[in-house]
Amino acid sequence: MDMTNFTFSNPTRLLFGVGRIQEIGKEIKKEGCKKILLVAGGGSIKKNGVYDTVATSLRENGIQWIELWGVVPNPVLSKVMEGIRMAKDNDIDGVLAVGGGSTIDTAKAVASGIYLDDVWASFLGKEKIEKALPLFVVLTISATGSESNGNFVITNEETKQKLGNYSPLVYPKVSIVDPSAQQTLPWNQTANGACDALAHIMESYFTGVGNETTLFVDEALMKAIIDATDKLLINQKDIEARSNLAWAATLALNGVSASQLKGDWASHDIEHAISALYPDVAHGAGLAVVFPAWITFVWKENEPTFRRWAKNVWDTDDVLVAVERMKTTFTRWDLPVSLKALSISKDAIPSIAAKATEVGKPGTVKKLSTEDVAKILEIAY
Amino acid sequence: MDMTNFTFSNPTRLLFGVGRIQEIGKEIKKEGCKKILLVAGGGSIKKNGVYDTVATSLRENGIQWIELWGVVPNPVLSKVMEGIRMAKDNDIDGVLAVGGGSTIDTAKAVASGIYLDDVWASFLGKEKIEKALPLFVVLTISATGSESNGNFVITNEETKQKLGNYSPLVYPKVSIVDPSAQQTLPWNQTANGACDALAHIMESYFTGVGNETTLFVDEALMKAIIDATDKLLINQKDIEARSNLAWAATLALNGVSASQLKGDWASHDIEHAISALYPDVAHGAGLAVVFPAWITFVWKENEPTFRRWAKNVWDTDDVLVAVERMKTTFTRWDLPVSLKALSISKDAIPSIAAKATEVGKPGTVKKLSTEDVAKILEIAY
Repeated sequence: MDMTNFTFSNPTRLLFGVGRIQEIGKEIKKEGCKKILLVAGGGSIKKNGVYDTVATSLRENGIQWIELWGVVPNPVLSKVMEGIRMAKDNDIDGVLAVGGGSTIDTAKAVASGIYLDDVWASFLGKEKIEKALPLFVVLTISATGSESNGNFVITNEETKQKLGNYSPLVYPKVSIVDPSAQQTLPWNQTANGACDALAHIMESYFTGVGNETTLFVDEALMKAIIDATDKLLINQKDIEARSNLAWAATLALNGVSASQLKGDWASHDIEHAISALYPDVAHGAGLAVVFPAWITFVWKENEPTFRRWAKNVWDTDDVLVAVERMKTTFTRWDLPVSLKALSISKDAIPSIAAKATEVGKPGTVKKLSTEDVAKILEIAY
Repeated sequence: MDMTNFTFSNPTRLLFGVGRIQEIGKEIKKEGCKKILLVAGGGSIKKNGVYDTVATSLRENGIQWIELWGVVPNPVLSKVMEGIRMAKDNDIDGVLAVGGGSTIDTAKAVASGIYLDDVWASFLGKEKIEKALPLFVVLTISATGSESNGNFVITNEETKQKLGNYSPLVYPKVSIVDPSAQQTLPWNQTANGACDALAHIMESYFTGVGNETTLFVDEALMKAIIDATDKLLINQKDIEARSNLAWAATLALNGVSASQLKGDWASHDIEHAISALYPDVAHGAGLAVVFPAWITFVWKENEPTFRRWAKNVWDTDDVLVAVERMKTTFTRWDLPVSLKALSISKDAIPSIAAKATEVGKPGTVKKLSTEDVAKILEIAY
């Protein structure tokens, strides 16, 4: 066994359940905030009633707010800068994200960036996050786990870099996950989210061997995600399945699934290179393309764990059969499983491979060279 | 599905791994404590080197301390009172438990009791915990999960009451779990601990139906505990198995295994009645006797979940066969599986049943009357 020591620490208070969004104002008041920046996406929260519930709760608790709209998938630095300016100009004392991972990540960058000389420098490791405004979340799509961790990913449109950042200071104080708010999501967002959550578990899982407790738990979470998503494919309003998918997606990246394990993250690095160059590619869709190819390329590096994954999650002794079953599942969920399906040409492979390795060789199961990444992308083509 | 809303919140920073006990002094210093009360049991920590490591770390970080020794299994109120007096007389600003569940629970009662008029009143719900000294833990036996929650159980020797208490204020600030510190435990303590952890999961698990995510996770944790304990039966120094058992025992009662679920706790209430009347009965051993009988009595009240437990944990379609397999496992671990084996006579059943129901009917799967508890104890006899 890889005797990785670890620290489990997750200060976020997570309120889970139907009808809980109305508690947000009271929670923000408890933390002593009086005027907050509300960060949101394209407007779906105005259609599904979430915005009204939030606004009513804020008003009832005497919280003032201003609004930053227009966060897009693969959220961008220019929107973060806009948020920082608004927060500074309006004496904001807290940030509330109402949306999914992109909205939360933008809110994290604003909450920490307001105290930095140059927020992008913190993504490059050149400036350290020492302080952040208190952050609150009302989650409207389960996928990234950002509602319950200190991670955030932002794309710099000018440099075409999509980089991750982390600070223990940007864990949300309070996150509310109401699965009923996700009943009207477009199907592709549900499927992308499920794939992202699965990928988060796999990034940790495959680096383990002998860490039975977390390996068993991670298999449980993978089975729960597949089970719930298949049920939602039949009935997108199935509140039981929504609850199970939502809670599994939170556990997929709140520290539980990664405990005892090192983490690989090469597939995420490759996907980030793809969506940095092709911003229309949804993160979950990109992962559906990259992950099967990555497994096909690296599985002999940690054979016992890839074999138990095949057995315990996909009911086969053959890793490559398991990969095919995973691809069949993604296809059933209407996710792409090839670069071609993302409308990316074979000629683009060298530039994606170069981008994925520009800050070093990604991966733990296998440290990937630029050539390795190119081979994975060819398998994915 | 039972659409139970829940809040997941666990502020404890848990440092897990071999060699981490030496970090305790630095962590206590970080929290600003200067003079602490060190709470400990019967002296095993002096034999296995844990005490020396802790003392060195405290000295190196300039932390002064006084020591409260002699916490016993089924920890008692008189020891809590002694600790409160020592803490008050010595201007203590933090409490450090070095030991297992009994030691931690005593430390929690001292940390909160120092601010109460009458600490026992808080167990009776007559006084509220509004404040507590910061609490730190170095865990030496994985069992109760007390290193990562706000629960504590104390026995009042005078009234022969064994009562639980809870406050969000007594979650440890920092807990250190070094599985290598458990390599020299007597076998019965390892087995009792494993049984206690299994029981914590089952108390939540059996109240679920359709909550697939947590049900899958709980099955994973049960399998991990059984797997690790069987490996330790062969080699008690197996550090991989120690790690897996330790981490599963923490997850068994840190909020993860109970999420989405209501919790039953009748078996714990019955066991508490037994060990209140027979203080020599170890908590884990009492649970090994009560739990199989409780399942036998109540399983038809939530048949789908008892059946999936039989299938997914014990590989049988028959719940009663699963119960027998669980008893066989406990017997293999040298745990008692009958009241008789605890040297409790059949005549004692009415008084235990009366005690278990004196503050109300225990249970969620089935609310148990005094007669129901007597029937369970007869099955257990």
